[in-house]
Amino acid sequence: MIVILKHSTTEEKRNQLISWLKRQGVDVHVSVGEYQTVLGMVGNTDMIDKELVASLDIVDSVKVVTDPFKCCNRKFHPDDSVISVGDVKIGGGNFCMIAGPCSVESEEQIVSVAKSVKAAGAGLLRGGAFKPRTSPYDFQGLKATGLELLKIARQETGLPIVTEVMGTADLHLFEDVDLIQIGARNMQNYDLLREVGKMGKPVLLKRGLANTIKELLMSAEYIMAGGSEDVILCERGIRTFDDYTRNTLDLAVVPVLHELTHLPVIVDPSHATGLARLVRPMALAAAVCGSDGLIIEVHNDPMHALCDGAQSLLPEDYAKLAEEVRKVREVAVR
Amino acid sequence: MIVILKHSTTEEKRNQLISWLKRQGVDVHVSVGEYQTVLGMVGNTDMIDKELVASLDIVDSVKVVTDPFKCCNRKFHPDDSVISVGDVKIGGGNFCMIAGPCSVESEEQIVSVAKSVKAAGAGLLRGGAFKPRTSPYDFQGLKATGLELLKIARQETGLPIVTEVMGTADLHLFEDVDLIQIGARNMQNYDLLREVGKMGKPVLLKRGLANTIKELLMSAEYIMAGGSEDVILCERGIRTFDDYTRNTLDLAVVPVLHELTHLPVIVDPSHATGLARLVRPMALAAAVCGSDGLIIEVHNDPMHALCDGAQSLLPEDYAKLAEEVRKVREVAVR
Amino acid sequence: MIVILKHSTTEEKRNQLISWLKRQGVDVHVSVGEYQTVLGMVGNTDMIDKELVASLDIVDSVKVVTDPFKCCNRKFHPDDSVISVGDVKIGGGNFCMIAGPCSVESEEQIVSVAKSVKAAGAGLLRGGAFKPRTSPYDFQGLKATGLELLKIARQETGLPIVTEVMGTADLHLFEDVDLIQIGARNMQNYDLLREVGKMGKPVLLKRGLANTIKELLMSAEYIMAGGSEDVILCERGIRTFDDYTRNTLDLAVVPVLHELTHLPVIVDPSHATGLARLVRPMALAAAVCGSDGLIIEVHNDPMHALCDGAQSLLPEDYAKLAEEVRKVREVAVR
Amino acid sequence: MIVILKHSTTEEKRNQLISWLKRQGVDVHVSVGEYQTVLGMVGNTDMIDKELVASLDIVDSVKVVTDPFKCCNRKFHPDDSVISVGDVKIGGGNFCMIAGPCSVESEEQIVSVAKSVKAAGAGLLRGGAFKPRTSPYDFQGLKATGLELLKIARQETGLPIVTEVMGTADLHLFEDVDLIQIGARNMQNYDLLREVGKMGKPVLLKRGLANTIKELLMSAEYIMAGGSEDVILCERGIRTFDDYTRNTLDLAVVPVLHELTHLPVIVDPSHATGLARLVRPMALAAAVCGSDGLIIEVHNDPMHALCDGAQSLLPEDYAKLAEEVRKVREVAVR
Repeated sequence: MIVILKHSTTEEKRNQLISWLKRQGVDVHVSVGEYQTVLGMVGNTDMIDKELVASLDIVDSVKVVTDPFKCCNRKFHPDDSVISVGDVKIGGGNFCMIAGPCSVESEEQIVSVAKSVKAAGAGLLRGGAFKPRTSPYDFQGLKATGLELLKIARQETGLPIVTEVMGTADLHLFEDVDLIQIGARNMQNYDLLREVGKMGKPVLLKRGLANTIKELLMSAEYIMAGGSEDVILCERGIRTFDDYTRNTLDLAVVPVLHELTHLPVIVDPSHATGLARLVRPMALAAAVCGSDGLIIEVHNDPMHALCDGAQSLLPEDYAKLAEEVRKVREVAVR
Repeated sequence: MIVILKHSTTEEKRNQLISWLKRQGVDVHVSVGEYQTVLGMVGNTDMIDKELVASLDIVDSVKVVTDPFKCCNRKFHPDDSVISVGDVKIGGGNFCMIAGPCSVESEEQIVSVAKSVKAAGAGLLRGGAFKPRTSPYDFQGLKATGLELLKIARQETGLPIVTEVMGTADLHLFEDVDLIQIGARNMQNYDLLREVGKMGKPVLLKRGLANTIKELLMSAEYIMAGGSEDVILCERGIRTFDDYTRNTLDLAVVPVLHELTHLPVIVDPSHATGLARLVRPMALAAAVCGSDGLIIEVHNDPMHALCDGAQSLLPEDYAKLAEEVRKVREVAVR
Repeated sequence: MIVILKHSTTEEKRNQLISWLKRQGVDVHVSVGEYQTVLGMVGNTDMIDKELVASLDIVDSVKVVTDPFKCCNRKFHPDDSVISVGDVKIGGGNFCMIAGPCSVESEEQIVSVAKSVKAAGAGLLRGGAFKPRTSPYDFQGLKATGLELLKIARQETGLPIVTEVMGTADLHLFEDVDLIQIGARNMQNYDLLREVGKMGKPVLLKRGLANTIKELLMSAEYIMAGGSEDVILCERGIRTFDDYTRNTLDLAVVPVLHELTHLPVIVDPSHATGLARLVRPMALAAAVCGSDGLIIEVHNDPMHALCDGAQSLLPEDYAKLAEEVRKVREVAVR
Repeated sequence: MIVILKHSTTEEKRNQLISWLKRQGVDVHVSVGEYQTVLGMVGNTDMIDKELVASLDIVDSVKVVTDPFKCCNRKFHPDDSVISVGDVKIGGGNFCMIAGPCSVESEEQIVSVAKSVKAAGAGLLRGGAFKPRTSPYDFQGLKATGLELLKIARQETGLPIVTEVMGTADLHLFEDVDLIQIGARNMQNYDLLREVGKMGKPVLLKRGLANTIKELLMSAEYIMAGGSEDVILCERGIRTFDDYTRNTLDLAVVPVLHELTHLPVIVDPSHATGLARLVRPMALAAAVCGSDGLIIEVHNDPMHALCDGAQSLLPEDYAKLAEEVRKVREVAVR
């Protein structure tokens, strides 16, 4: 942590601040320049309120030089994490295709889609049982029943299942889910992050619509501090000012996250774009820029899907896309 | 709901779509133009997936002409809602000053601040017991103990209390809180919204950092659909690309929300700016543009505050500001 | 300028970088910490490419500690600039109301509006002659004729005139304009900034739709480096993701700019909101948070205005608003 | 254009509006619903001010159903445009690699880089002569001299040249430039767009940092309305709230633009990310999602580049990347 003082700072005020900083348990190195004086902290600055220091009259600005994330920081864990979900591995060179409908609607539907995506090479089955909807009047998912139907589809196909949890009150229902998803709107629902972490199961953490990379890593840190080491990060689009697509898929986060953290990073082109015809180009783009997997919505009858039909692929289109993803990765991934 | 078809649409495909729309229970009026055909739906279009229709090959775009929010819509409830919190009224011309520390730290601290802000004319006492923090390693609040200390401060001063709930598991602790706050990061934590709504108590709902006005209203709708009619909306800054202030206070939402909804709207200049010296100008601005109240952080010792000291006012500065707010409102509010 | 090195940096690579930095003409102070080494530059770092250094393998990050703006920096010019436009003064406690139609349409119209706004207390007359329009098919302004009509209105009322220039090819036409406006879309049209600066006349510089405060100041710096010392900054709304208002008026920039620069800061509530009924609340808000003036669109017949009629006030409404602005400033401005 | 009236609208006011609309030269179809009345315009609505109508008391909202762009609209020009720059073709299946240094620095430098990128398969040479810089104190380019050096490099290699023009006053110097670039900050410098269009030469138009897809198309429309039919669009990153990369590369615009316009679309991964090590993953991503070309910065000595060294590739790394781009396109492009 570095504090830049204003030019006008008197020696007395500077010394008061230095004394205060030392009382917080750090050493302070002083370097006097022509227009400002720079104070460098050495030691543990975690307990110092940076914003408070920055707000002082005599302070020009405060620069933080250590990362606030520890467990997920590649500096302290240089090798890629490889996360096991059932028999499937993700990360460290293991690419994973996740697919399934937005919502679980019926046993017939989920088993049928599961078989299709398995045949196309998917490694995990997705399907929403608890659905976060902007409107209280929209379909909210089959809930516990949906979870049971997912387990039937798992039994029929052998595919591990991933599905979203929306609140701590439902967590007991997720004991037998292979990969628990935290949705974008709950990325900073800290109670949920902490409690999910305590379960010790693999977690799929989606980036919020306006969250920074650092905030995403801090939310992973909540889960890991809770007890789980197996967190998969997911880029699914951020909110910007254009409205031709639902969100703006920020693919540069894939290589950036790989620099900052050892955790795997996957991409969701379905929610990012909201349009089935944009899923293919964005999926290929995500595959070649280094993502560790893709989560894609597939439905056997998009025209009758209970939610998000607009962004679902038909099983036959998904199969073609999965094949193309394999081919471009062969060429692009070193 | 209006569907604009592409110029190239064949009559056969158009008729297929019209048949499908009619099967969803609406009437369809067709108007043929030079470059596109427009279909106008009449009837209840709630169950039609607009994004699905928009994604069809033959569709250029879909325009929704009805608001998705009902309970909080001024169209169906033209008069301002006046919300009672203890003996205090908010909305419909009743302006309310809410003040207190970011976090409850000790009995001495919260009682002292409560007395100060009451003397300055505040009508409600705020204080965080459960604190949402970006980092799991930061101070998380005194939790249940903090709630008890708030109640002591209420007893000492008579001020009703407002404090944030972070998860459904803690809701039973909030039965005796006068106004329950939903924080910005939980604005779309739908489980929490629904359960808080069921308590039937007044709720203070903060706008999320990247949420639209419509989404804010839909979240109010969740609470109201749950059973509470008493929701107060709060603008507290949105995320943009500049970093001189923590967030960008969007004051135009105050008059815009007053057009769209009958619910009261207050403003939080402390969290929006993150800097004590910007609280005064932004509080005055919020007061004259029509807000129904202000929620401001006050601390008797900002240099030692356990969190957010940078944005807290000293009690004497708050007293001066409260007086100025009263004066500008006298002039500005018709 | 401070360079934070990665933990893994070898001494050899560190010394190579230090040598390179010294060759750029600065002294380097080295401070070794547990997880990273910090290099502090002393001397003129203007010629060092910060982004290049930041991109090196061994570098974690680079922190810049000096402001890139000089002429407009309050550090080097602590007193408020007071800018004279004709007989009117702006800044340093001098508040200025600027008003007039979006576009000059006819002699009758501009003279009539000029008389109305003068009667209401406006100090300057605005009116567009060259109009920046998103579409080449929209009305582009009366151009040179419009400038002549503005001068007639000036002669009739004595009000100095402000109007926008769109390109260097037209600058010769602006010799007799009192205050030359650079529009938001041209805020980083560096050729135009430089040439306008050379004219030595007062300039009104509008903030771009997605520009930072620092970029706004750097654009003022272009004008000042060109030769004009008289720059007035104008906040007119930034682009965010909501669409109920045209832009998001960022009022906190007013006090923030007053900290960073000695130049006056005014606010344009008409373009920021795009809606006449939001002009009053936003104008009052801007007045009390410390702006040095307001620029507001007024039209005698908004229903027939050739552009931006939606955001124009009628003269009688402007007169009422001007009176209210005076009253709230009396109360709010210390 | 569709106008939705408020529920409370009286028949008299409705008829007044309908009369006014008809006087603007359109037919009006009225459709009365339970909560609102919908007016549908038939005919040319170009001259009606939508924002003015939307601002009327009785109007709930206005929906525009026709695109404001004509010349570049795929609806009126279904086939891909193929644009010739010298002997090189871009669009309609013709993929083009553009490469070269950020700035032209010397004859030796530009000729050397030109030979390298030609050997790697580049079809066009880029190089900045007039440089838009945020600070007036930064290097502004070699200007006319830089253009001459580019022409020497063209003569040595046969590569057509592309370089940015910053103002109309310099346009006469660009007569012999093969492809004239309009930079992101000038995307809405309408005077420049119009004058460049009059030259009738191919133009490379970069998207502004916070501009919508529609605004990009309207700026292309300015050029095309001026007289040039040969416009190439370029995505180069938009501004969001994260700061790990310089901008956020919005790749979904590539397929979206291909739906809306017949013009070619290329991608600039160098400026979008600002970091050389992110250029490869983003270039591959752009190649597979359908872009018609890539513009990439290459420098033979990035550590000594006069600007933007951080984002430049070495010639040998560019050669490897160009080869990979060819391979992924073979697999991905149908």
